[in-house]
Amino acid sequence: MIDLDAVLAVNADFYTAFAERDYAAMDELWARGSPVACIHPGWPAVTGRDAVMASWERILGNANSPAIVCLSPEAFFCGDAIFVICYERIEGALLVATNIFVREDGVWRLAHHQSGPAAGEPEKPPQTPPGTIH
Amino acid sequence: MIDLDAVLAVNADFYTAFAERDYAAMDELWARGSPVACIHPGWPAVTGRDAVMASWERILGNANSPAIVCLSPEAFFCGDAIFVICYERIEGALLVATNIFVREDGVWRLAHHQSGPAAGEPEKPPQTPPGTIH
Repeated sequence: MIDLDAVLAVNADFYTAFAERDYAAMDELWARGSPVACIHPGWPAVTGRDAVMASWERILGNANSPAIVCLSPEAFFCGDAIFVICYERIEGALLVATNIFVREDGVWRLAHHQSGPAAGEPEKPPQTPPGTIH
Repeated sequence: MIDLDAVLAVNADFYTAFAERDYAAMDELWARGSPVACIHPGWPAVTGRDAVMASWERILGNANSPAIVCLSPEAFFCGDAIFVICYERIEGALLVATNIFVREDGVWRLAHHQSGPAAGEPEKPPQTPPGTIH
């Protein structure tokens, strides 16, 4: 049984930590054993726990940063999932996207796509194809 | 063994379907047995397979829509995951976010966060807490 309410409670904790500029609480909320990434508005995509937490330290350390409130959260269970972050060039515009894939009958299919304005070019050069993990 | 290359290949298929305005290919790529959602830039969050595919039909049916190219994709394995979509009010601004949670030692923790400008207010009123799924 998957308890979506439990995840919505953690989602609420995330916004409480954000609103209260509570770095220690924010640090507690991020995964340790899984790869992590973060796309803040107006930032390039940030990958890896150290870089993600450094980004939060910078954001939460800004005493003048505005209040934040979460509205209308909805939770969706994926089962085994992989997410891809990438940039999208659409003529003159550069966007940045999160794509979530789930496995159905052995086939990876899209469960979610979010695309929005990117702050600038990707920080990393185009990559060689990643290998597999075991 | 998780083959991230297989997912990056599906991610590439997604952008090919997008660039070629191929609705049938796009339809094939989206999950059937899992909940789906989509946050296009300049749109409210779209949830449910019928609404998501209707959004793609509209986008791919626009003959004047610009070309799209994917840059610098990176894939991240989650294990069992839940994603939350929600809006964020930051003083005068309204943002929309994707938050991905993974389970570590029985605790749901953040694996990814993307936030970007929202097109407008949430279409749905604030919800009663969702129940559990079995």
